[in-house]
Amino acid sequence: METREVLQKLKNGELSLEEAEQYFRRQPFEELGYAKLDTHRKVRSGFAEVIFCSGKTDEHLLSIFGKLYEEEGEVFGTRASKQQYEMIRQKYPETQYDEVSRIIKIEKTEKKRAGKIAVCTAGTADIPVAEEAAQTAEYFGTYVERIYDIGVCGIHRLLSQIETIQSANCIVAVAGMEGALASVMAGLVDKPVIGVPTSVGYGASMNGLSALLTMINSCANGIAVVNIDNGYGAGYMATQINRLGVKTNPL
Amino acid sequence: METREVLQKLKNGELSLEEAEQYFRRQPFEELGYAKLDTHRKVRSGFAEVIFCSGKTDEHLLSIFGKLYEEEGEVFGTRASKQQYEMIRQKYPETQYDEVSRIIKIEKTEKKRAGKIAVCTAGTADIPVAEEAAQTAEYFGTYVERIYDIGVCGIHRLLSQIETIQSANCIVAVAGMEGALASVMAGLVDKPVIGVPTSVGYGASMNGLSALLTMINSCANGIAVVNIDNGYGAGYMATQINRLGVKTNPL
Amino acid sequence: METREVLQKLKNGELSLEEAEQYFRRQPFEELGYAKLDTHRKVRSGFAEVIFCSGKTDEHLLSIFGKLYEEEGEVFGTRASKQQYEMIRQKYPETQYDEVSRIIKIEKTEKKRAGKIAVCTAGTADIPVAEEAAQTAEYFGTYVERIYDIGVCGIHRLLSQIETIQSANCIVAVAGMEGALASVMAGLVDKPVIGVPTSVGYGASMNGLSALLTMINSCANGIAVVNIDNGYGAGYMATQINRLGVKTNPL
Amino acid sequence: METREVLQKLKNGELSLEEAEQYFRRQPFEELGYAKLDTHRKVRSGFAEVIFCSGKTDEHLLSIFGKLYEEEGEVFGTRASKQQYEMIRQKYPETQYDEVSRIIKIEKTEKKRAGKIAVCTAGTADIPVAEEAAQTAEYFGTYVERIYDIGVCGIHRLLSQIETIQSANCIVAVAGMEGALASVMAGLVDKPVIGVPTSVGYGASMNGLSALLTMINSCANGIAVVNIDNGYGAGYMATQINRLGVKTNPL
Amino acid sequence: METREVLQKLKNGELSLEEAEQYFRRQPFEELGYAKLDTHRKVRSGFAEVIFCSGKTDEHLLSIFGKLYEEEGEVFGTRASKQQYEMIRQKYPETQYDEVSRIIKIEKTEKKRAGKIAVCTAGTADIPVAEEAAQTAEYFGTYVERIYDIGVCGIHRLLSQIETIQSANCIVAVAGMEGALASVMAGLVDKPVIGVPTSVGYGASMNGLSALLTMINSCANGIAVVNIDNGYGAGYMATQINRLGVKTNPL
Amino acid sequence: METREVLQKLKNGELSLEEAEQYFRRQPFEELGYAKLDTHRKVRSGFAEVIFCSGKTDEHLLSIFGKLYEEEGEVFGTRASKQQYEMIRQKYPETQYDEVSRIIKIEKTEKKRAGKIAVCTAGTADIPVAEEAAQTAEYFGTYVERIYDIGVCGIHRLLSQIETIQSANCIVAVAGMEGALASVMAGLVDKPVIGVPTSVGYGASMNGLSALLTMINSCANGIAVVNIDNGYGAGYMATQINRLGVKTNPL
Amino acid sequence: METREVLQKLKNGELSLEEAEQYFRRQPFEELGYAKLDTHRKVRSGFAEVIFCSGKTDEHLLSIFGKLYEEEGEVFGTRASKQQYEMIRQKYPETQYDEVSRIIKIEKTEKKRAGKIAVCTAGTADIPVAEEAAQTAEYFGTYVERIYDIGVCGIHRLLSQIETIQSANCIVAVAGMEGALASVMAGLVDKPVIGVPTSVGYGASMNGLSALLTMINSCANGIAVVNIDNGYGAGYMATQINRLGVKTNPL
Amino acid sequence: METREVLQKLKNGELSLEEAEQYFRRQPFEELGYAKLDTHRKVRSGFAEVIFCSGKTDEHLLSIFGKLYEEEGEVFGTRASKQQYEMIRQKYPETQYDEVSRIIKIEKTEKKRAGKIAVCTAGTADIPVAEEAAQTAEYFGTYVERIYDIGVCGIHRLLSQIETIQSANCIVAVAGMEGALASVMAGLVDKPVIGVPTSVGYGASMNGLSALLTMINSCANGIAVVNIDNGYGAGYMATQINRLGVKTNPL
Repeated sequence: METREVLQKLKNGELSLEEAEQYFRRQPFEELGYAKLDTHRKVRSGFAEVIFCSGKTDEHLLSIFGKLYEEEGEVFGTRASKQQYEMIRQKYPETQYDEVSRIIKIEKTEKKRAGKIAVCTAGTADIPVAEEAAQTAEYFGTYVERIYDIGVCGIHRLLSQIETIQSANCIVAVAGMEGALASVMAGLVDKPVIGVPTSVGYGASMNGLSALLTMINSCANGIAVVNIDNGYGAGYMATQINRLGVKTNPL
Repeated sequence: METREVLQKLKNGELSLEEAEQYFRRQPFEELGYAKLDTHRKVRSGFAEVIFCSGKTDEHLLSIFGKLYEEEGEVFGTRASKQQYEMIRQKYPETQYDEVSRIIKIEKTEKKRAGKIAVCTAGTADIPVAEEAAQTAEYFGTYVERIYDIGVCGIHRLLSQIETIQSANCIVAVAGMEGALASVMAGLVDKPVIGVPTSVGYGASMNGLSALLTMINSCANGIAVVNIDNGYGAGYMATQINRLGVKTNPL
Repeated sequence: METREVLQKLKNGELSLEEAEQYFRRQPFEELGYAKLDTHRKVRSGFAEVIFCSGKTDEHLLSIFGKLYEEEGEVFGTRASKQQYEMIRQKYPETQYDEVSRIIKIEKTEKKRAGKIAVCTAGTADIPVAEEAAQTAEYFGTYVERIYDIGVCGIHRLLSQIETIQSANCIVAVAGMEGALASVMAGLVDKPVIGVPTSVGYGASMNGLSALLTMINSCANGIAVVNIDNGYGAGYMATQINRLGVKTNPL
Repeated sequence: METREVLQKLKNGELSLEEAEQYFRRQPFEELGYAKLDTHRKVRSGFAEVIFCSGKTDEHLLSIFGKLYEEEGEVFGTRASKQQYEMIRQKYPETQYDEVSRIIKIEKTEKKRAGKIAVCTAGTADIPVAEEAAQTAEYFGTYVERIYDIGVCGIHRLLSQIETIQSANCIVAVAGMEGALASVMAGLVDKPVIGVPTSVGYGASMNGLSALLTMINSCANGIAVVNIDNGYGAGYMATQINRLGVKTNPL
Repeated sequence: METREVLQKLKNGELSLEEAEQYFRRQPFEELGYAKLDTHRKVRSGFAEVIFCSGKTDEHLLSIFGKLYEEEGEVFGTRASKQQYEMIRQKYPETQYDEVSRIIKIEKTEKKRAGKIAVCTAGTADIPVAEEAAQTAEYFGTYVERIYDIGVCGIHRLLSQIETIQSANCIVAVAGMEGALASVMAGLVDKPVIGVPTSVGYGASMNGLSALLTMINSCANGIAVVNIDNGYGAGYMATQINRLGVKTNPL
Repeated sequence: METREVLQKLKNGELSLEEAEQYFRRQPFEELGYAKLDTHRKVRSGFAEVIFCSGKTDEHLLSIFGKLYEEEGEVFGTRASKQQYEMIRQKYPETQYDEVSRIIKIEKTEKKRAGKIAVCTAGTADIPVAEEAAQTAEYFGTYVERIYDIGVCGIHRLLSQIETIQSANCIVAVAGMEGALASVMAGLVDKPVIGVPTSVGYGASMNGLSALLTMINSCANGIAVVNIDNGYGAGYMATQINRLGVKTNPL
Repeated sequence: METREVLQKLKNGELSLEEAEQYFRRQPFEELGYAKLDTHRKVRSGFAEVIFCSGKTDEHLLSIFGKLYEEEGEVFGTRASKQQYEMIRQKYPETQYDEVSRIIKIEKTEKKRAGKIAVCTAGTADIPVAEEAAQTAEYFGTYVERIYDIGVCGIHRLLSQIETIQSANCIVAVAGMEGALASVMAGLVDKPVIGVPTSVGYGASMNGLSALLTMINSCANGIAVVNIDNGYGAGYMATQINRLGVKTNPL
Repeated sequence: METREVLQKLKNGELSLEEAEQYFRRQPFEELGYAKLDTHRKVRSGFAEVIFCSGKTDEHLLSIFGKLYEEEGEVFGTRASKQQYEMIRQKYPETQYDEVSRIIKIEKTEKKRAGKIAVCTAGTADIPVAEEAAQTAEYFGTYVERIYDIGVCGIHRLLSQIETIQSANCIVAVAGMEGALASVMAGLVDKPVIGVPTSVGYGASMNGLSALLTMINSCANGIAVVNIDNGYGAGYMATQINRLGVKTNPL
């Protein structure tokens, strides 16, 4: 409902003064005291609110989990510990937990997936971050191709998969250490590459800062970068891009 | 022509041994000695090769400019100085130069633009970087909406433009100093935001590093970041995303 | 008593030579050997000395806690562990402890609060730091409005509270990750904003350094910044500013 | 005019539909194309908009300077070069320029100053930044006490001025190199101290970053910090604090 | 014995060829396989070798401890854990351990101390580092004055001790957080100040790096700096300086 | 088999179309799903694939360990924990584990060693990294001379070993803290020096970053540097260089 | 005159009330408005005030230069440009200037030098910083031995000078690039070494920061470090140490 | 002549006492006062001393250039400016200067080159550093294959040259921006790769620091890294390695 429409209805008497006032003062979130749940979010962005579980108290986590589940019929959390999972499934036994990606969720069963993105890793140690990306994208209705362990120190492994990669609407390149994977991939495809530096490495990797710098300085075109280990952010943006490609919002 | 097709033709005698060998050894670039022009690039990525003018000698720049012009009928360079422009238009008087974006180009006249992206800046000092992004995207066939000087210290300026911004396939958010623009925008739209930190600022801005960190650490979803002042990279990736949205490659 | 007054009295015989000498050599602190308790502090600054509990041995903490309690009739400590609380309440059962803010205190009951400051957070994970700020300000006699979880990725939550925020004498903006909250707020109010970066975040947040840089580089006016997670420092300075506004020192 | 009032008037017919719609869509800034002058700013914050001259083209600077002068009857710019001053006074011969602070302005003559702040420097090389702070505060109606060259390596110079400093509503401490001045001052006064690190120094001063870190890590209470060399920001916030003290907005 | 003397003796037949060759190939250390004990060290530097206990295996530590004890009749180790102490005193029950400084030693009883140095700290949390400095200096024969908790946020505490400090041959200034103590002290004395930054602090203190930068950038003269938490290094160098003052090597 | 040879054979009918196609699509690695074992590696580089054990799940580690053992008849892993060793020897009791270097392996018994490299350390705490280098080189057939605890603060220890060091084909210089060993050595030999900074140190050593910078900035010639604590990388490259010297690949 | 003495005299009538008050309010510096000349400095520290010329306006520099010359009969400035020298000698033709060290001075002719310090450099590019140290020490009455170009990449050059170096009361080690000189020297002498990192180098030397880190992390004992390129600070502290050695203040 | 031999000869009377003493005190460098020319260097390392021209005064440069030319019959300098070249060829007209590499030299004409190294660059802007490496290696007798502009964003350019690269004894990989070239190459060859990060790039490249970190963190084996832009160092070490391969020192 647009501003003009509201005013017209007020003028016409279709809306009371209070109802019209409410419109301009509406509060598109649910106040929990310690938090403001963004229940208006799905309308605004096409994505329901997601829970970043790490650091939340059990009480807060359970309450937010329940509220969102209630409202959407499904719920999705990242960076959950196994202890948090044990706590939640006491109350919601249908909860699922994946130890690799540390994703916790209750998901509707009838969901379809559309389009295609490719989630790639340089090494096996990057897989947890890649799975966070892949499962996020899947939760939001994206079909995901996983291609793992194709780092640049054995470039033939990447080249052997290039046709699959080229067929995706968006590529997520997950790499730690020197993080060179994203540059090489961007030179081989015509779709956007989202680089996800990981904290895999030691010494001068500085917990992923080196990989982040590598990706940001890429000489290739068509790369943008998210935070270190931010699989969720990459999966989210890849979904946005994929939706443009499939021209249909599967949720 | 696929591998199998080549082999089949060789077997059938439609290709000589030399021709087949050539296929597998083909060199999809033009060797200039000091450079290898990637003339295969447009086929692979849908984008012709672009010249990063900064630091090139006059002789090399002129030669590369000419080669690409010849091959594509148009040519596009970034980070060109006025001196480089003066030098090039001696030989190619049809060359155009924009002092703000420092883009130099000869562009075909009949080109159409499709879709829409929004290029936004926090302040007026960010405009040169924004123009590099906008003009890059336009050169590659994207329709661009420019919305400048809407930084977060006067949030009403941003909010007053929000409907225009929401209608784009991709948003490029260009900001220096604390670089908070990208986060605020990503919270208001459902399309991907490409953050471009700029070197605008002083003191602890550390030539854009602070703005880069701000954008990388964004609490909002749907943001990815390119290098400091990398308007070209943002315009390029926004074009890739926009093309997915319009499902048509205008080049 | 001013220098001249002392000298006059000495000359007049109202003070002995020793008493006058004492004045110029006075030592406005209590020597504990391992520490010098600044008992002159309240006279000088209007604030009693506060204990930074972290890292103190049990013996030292208990002794300092007791000394200050004795002298002021109340006492206030920050960054206390639960173990330290258990130890102290053995001797002082009236001690109170808040697990969120990690503040330990014995507070006089008749204290009044004056003026108003607003303590705001970007997310729920920033609340412990915000509570340290809020409870510090309250202990020193300030009325505090808490407004939590209004980060910039959902700007409508902040805008819905703007009138409350604008009515405060000083705003404390607590934010981790990209720390953009402070800039947006400073653009909306006419009172000073104290930015408190927090160590909330991961990867390139570098334990709060990124948020600190964001706030320091703010394009908005009327912001100054304290150390990462330094809720105490923010609550202290907000109290100083608030006292100027209410023109009355409530202690 | 509040939301309810507008709606009531619309309902009553005192406002047309267009007028009411205008209210909710109003744009409190002047659109210049390349910039959005925040003419609503003084109402919102009590401070008129100020020009950051550095990096602006002559054409833009002159236009913005003129617009603001027209609107307010006075105008104030920071970081102006002598060349910019020469250019502006061609058109506005009444313009004043101070080479030390690099402030350019046309100021109303009848302005009064209220309250008191102290602007202090560690060394003589910090004076340009201090003058930017002092003259900003004066422009906005604050009485300023300047106390220069009282760095901590000769602590008696600071101690000799302590009574003057203690009588201010707010202290601005400007220091480069190791930046220790702010800590020492905050321990001696009961008013807020705003630390301004400067880029004065060499080697490991890293253009002011070291002084910034010193001030942020201060063991004293009642300090907050602005960006390196940001005299303007310090003078602005000191004015906000001073106004609380004098309870009168002198503009 | 000088080169010329050896050669003369060889020529004269007072030394055999083998003895002379030995002189030029002598190996002034004891080879343990995993370590080369520098038993020549006391002759060269006036200080016996000291053990950095942290990270050594029990077997290696015990063996080195024994070797040095045997050779010197006393032995001194830094950064020892309580576990290492328990292990060593099994074999050498006369071993002493101080939990604050983490120094382990067996010391000759008849040792005298000469000259005077002052070891000062900003806060109580800096005491462990200060004790490492003080006890090192005492072990090497220096008389030490301890003056703790005189940080710059309460400058009167420092000023009240200034005469004691001024009477020392060398001052060791131990401070974490912003580390401003060293600058203030150097401005008040005419003897060298050795700054020891400590890792005390949080947030932007970056484990002592900020304090290190403060001290390195000091505007005062007569300061030099050792590594973060390096009490041993400061005590050692203060002893070297003190020995110059007393003109007698007490060992 | 070269491209031309394959094509010739296809044309001649010696290869079927499928066989030829296979050649150009060959996949020189074994796909495990979560990893792509580079079994083609020894042919390409002369070194079999090695396992970086740290961070691998037990299941993945055991499977990769077994696969490589099967294929090569021996297997070599770095950064293995004792727990991983206990797990592996359940299945492969012939496995050997060295607690110092954290290397796990099953090695063929008949292997010979050729040439010579020198592995040197500055202190005893650098030995674990040095052993990783030495044992890696030995596994790949290099004869290794170990010279430990010859750091620059007792330069005579280094000088006493200089003839042994000069006789090696390559020198590996392992040093933490200030990492000066590599520069001094490179000035004394005519063979390449590989610097390995270690994380040994504290305070401003920043976990080895300082030592890395020291070595990278060396004023001496003939030094190149690997990552902090990267003994494996140094032993690998030293082996490559040694093989050039002995002109025989001992594997 | 001590406090007690003043009070006694007041009581006795030997001092008037005003004279006594003056004592406690005395201001041991000369107020120039823009600066506070520390004319009390020589009494307090044994060193007259010195001018840091860089960045001073001509007017200020000339005035300060004159004041100090007047008061002491000699004057000493560092970091002077040739232009500043030309300006000053207009008025004071007896002024001397050294282009290498950039020291400007008028020095009394009868001055003696006592004791000995050694000023050493790693390379020839470090000489300007070394000369600032050496000439500072000489001005303050120290005998200086210069030993240049003895960097660690040709260790024999250092060893050939070791006897001269060992005979000094203090060693100043000036080095850029990797800055290893200080460590090696400290291992060879029994006197304190002051490390001066220089900005000589390129790339990862980060303008001297790497050399600073090397020296701070030294494994040798008896080293402390001053700021990058701070020859003056090193020469000053070396003089303090040397004076302890010679037990006579030559000024 | 070995130690024993000298002693034997002394004993036999074949050497005088003075001659023998001279042997043990010999000074293997030429003292110029401001520098110590390492004329013993070629004997020790197989490489004559080279001049780093940048920052040398004309007088010093000319004198050193002449001394070395005299001694060796040829001379080689790096980082020379055109002005320095003009100055030198006044006296030595046979001097050659290359503007790209900034190498200045007089080279013997009869020199042969042996073995082979490959010098590769990612882009054309890296060529100056690559030429410094290549010409250094050539001067020291190495045959050099140049392969430029094969960066990873167009991986086919690299793959097309792989056979040439694989035939070298050592590969020098020169790359700025993200510096990924070294990793990809090391995965494709069995010889050591020397990574040379360059300062080519902008923004977060931080003048080559990002490329340095990329190379240091490489996931590939057989890489070591030299300083940013240090072509000379890479060419030197590649020569050392190549000499091992050809088993003949061509100088």
